[in-house]
Amino acid sequence: MTAERSTPPTISEVAVEANVGRATAARTLGGYGYVSPELRERVLAAAERLGYRANALARSMSTGVSHTLGVIVADIGNPFFAGVVRGISDTSRARGFDTLVLSTHEDLAEEVAAVNVLIDKRVDGIIVASAALRPGSTAHIEEARARDIPVVLVDRAVPGLDELPTVVIDNREASREAVAALIAAGHRRIGFVWGPPVDDRPARRRELTAMAANDIWTDGERLRGYLDALDDAGLPFDPELVMVGPKTEERAIEEVGRMLRLDDRVTALFCTETEAVTGALRAIRARGLRIPADVSLIGFDDSSWAAVMDPPLTMIEQPMFALGRRAAEVLLDTIEPGDAPAEREEATRHTLDTRFIPRDSVAPPSR
Amino acid sequence: MTAERSTPPTISEVAVEANVGRATAARTLGGYGYVSPELRERVLAAAERLGYRANALARSMSTGVSHTLGVIVADIGNPFFAGVVRGISDTSRARGFDTLVLSTHEDLAEEVAAVNVLIDKRVDGIIVASAALRPGSTAHIEEARARDIPVVLVDRAVPGLDELPTVVIDNREASREAVAALIAAGHRRIGFVWGPPVDDRPARRRELTAMAANDIWTDGERLRGYLDALDDAGLPFDPELVMVGPKTEERAIEEVGRMLRLDDRVTALFCTETEAVTGALRAIRARGLRIPADVSLIGFDDSSWAAVMDPPLTMIEQPMFALGRRAAEVLLDTIEPGDAPAEREEATRHTLDTRFIPRDSVAPPSR
Repeated sequence: MTAERSTPPTISEVAVEANVGRATAARTLGGYGYVSPELRERVLAAAERLGYRANALARSMSTGVSHTLGVIVADIGNPFFAGVVRGISDTSRARGFDTLVLSTHEDLAEEVAAVNVLIDKRVDGIIVASAALRPGSTAHIEEARARDIPVVLVDRAVPGLDELPTVVIDNREASREAVAALIAAGHRRIGFVWGPPVDDRPARRRELTAMAANDIWTDGERLRGYLDALDDAGLPFDPELVMVGPKTEERAIEEVGRMLRLDDRVTALFCTETEAVTGALRAIRARGLRIPADVSLIGFDDSSWAAVMDPPLTMIEQPMFALGRRAAEVLLDTIEPGDAPAEREEATRHTLDTRFIPRDSVAPPSR
Repeated sequence: MTAERSTPPTISEVAVEANVGRATAARTLGGYGYVSPELRERVLAAAERLGYRANALARSMSTGVSHTLGVIVADIGNPFFAGVVRGISDTSRARGFDTLVLSTHEDLAEEVAAVNVLIDKRVDGIIVASAALRPGSTAHIEEARARDIPVVLVDRAVPGLDELPTVVIDNREASREAVAALIAAGHRRIGFVWGPPVDDRPARRRELTAMAANDIWTDGERLRGYLDALDDAGLPFDPELVMVGPKTEERAIEEVGRMLRLDDRVTALFCTETEAVTGALRAIRARGLRIPADVSLIGFDDSSWAAVMDPPLTMIEQPMFALGRRAAEVLLDTIEPGDAPAEREEATRHTLDTRFIPRDSVAPPSR
């Protein structure tokens, strides 16, 4: 399948030759971390047989690779980001890199500080789920790149940084598909939980889409997918059916309660985060309503809890681990191009598939 | 309340004087991270009024504080550790320290490597939820201390490191209380999910407790609490009622299924991790049984999902955030003793309270 190679052998090939894991080979050849004396011997012998050592060490010395990646996420307490980080750290570990993680709580100033810390700690590259919402707020990322530290965006595209490698899902299409499933079941009054973090409810659709453009990228895209599905079905947009305000479970309880008390109440809910789902479930229970007989529900971010609910919930599963893995691969292929299949380096936007998991929380409306 | 102080003013006092957050004051005085020009001016003026600057900067220069903490956890993908990390990073951020997190997947070799990385990155202190199970495996932690890097243990005590500050919950007592609640409801056949990761089921209690001593500290303590509750009630120990094998949801499904198929089957389950709970729920559902009519259940690690289950689940809530906060406080008080209330420095073992949350998943046995 592959043409004969003129490039020097990779760490992976040394690992195979030595019959050890790639991390062990990378640690031995990189001269860092713990490797048992027996394994170290085997790796060095294999490297010598393949003619690896001289090349690799020379490259390592000339590039000053520290074998450390930095990762910046908005909230490490969110299981979604925890899954992404696990994908990153597993993948980088397998290639001999350690991973340093910082959490910013959606605070741009904290993100700026985090980038400075990682520059100071001399990481070889940075993966960031950025809180930067618009072109004017990306100076810190430009600063890292100006210092020749490659940056990969994960989970969130950032306006003005379109040329950076970006690993995301198609939030808009996944949301459109979910809302279309509710419409196909017969629903016309579908609540969107949660929306822009503004105090005043937008009166018109144009105001809402302007707000979405200033929201976290993923959340704005999910709102656009909701509107797409309404458009496709020729359904009108009703601002009363979009949650606004702080993105908290408490607020979701209030807003869903409000939507359930409307004269022409919602008969279905599309919840874009785990806490939007649990907030909606509390509000539904507080009104004495049942799923799916009285209210249908689809949520974002599947978890083992969603599958054991009564009824099991229809959910959109994000490939958290795969998002992290791909982001790490793209970054590591930039840092160590010798190990990279050529086709990987061409793409800028990497869009991974979500999975719509139909369970038992969707039924036709009762009225 | 306090006697007149002879110590120099703290960063907190400068922050109050300048009417800014402590993080802003710490960043300004530490000369790192982003602070707006206006706030920087206010902080420097306040520091001058209080006579802070010379002392603090001198201390910072003489001690070489880098304002970075390192955190090592077994699995950042576990919501428990994500919560602990959030407590650590919020607390250290408020005191002007950044937090670097590494995840080890319960692998001692990875933990050794992680400590080396943090030493290399010149952190001021390390918080670790250690995978080290016995006195012989703690050389890496001794190495950090030999380099004058203070270490605080969180979530898990480590045999042989009793003199290190250790922030934990009383796993044994929390478990005893939960199992006692099941016994008080009338249960005699109570399954323990999950137990030691061994292939062969222990035939006798003595073997089981020996296995527990070689398990992760928290898991061993929870098993001891289960046995305590049986002892208190004069109930016999039956090895068939303890899950063994890999600590995975899949294994929990198998083992709970087995316990439910016994001639004298379990009527209640005590599940010590989130995935033990969801595994048990799947096994119960697969047998067509209902909670609590057919099986009672108590779980460890409350979550918003547990509260919206039908029925809502009785759970033990761990103070994840507070564990992280206390660990960070103890560590920062060691690094910056000037800011510390004296009484904090005396304790070595810090035991935080858990909360037993009775909901609707416990009832008397049907037979």
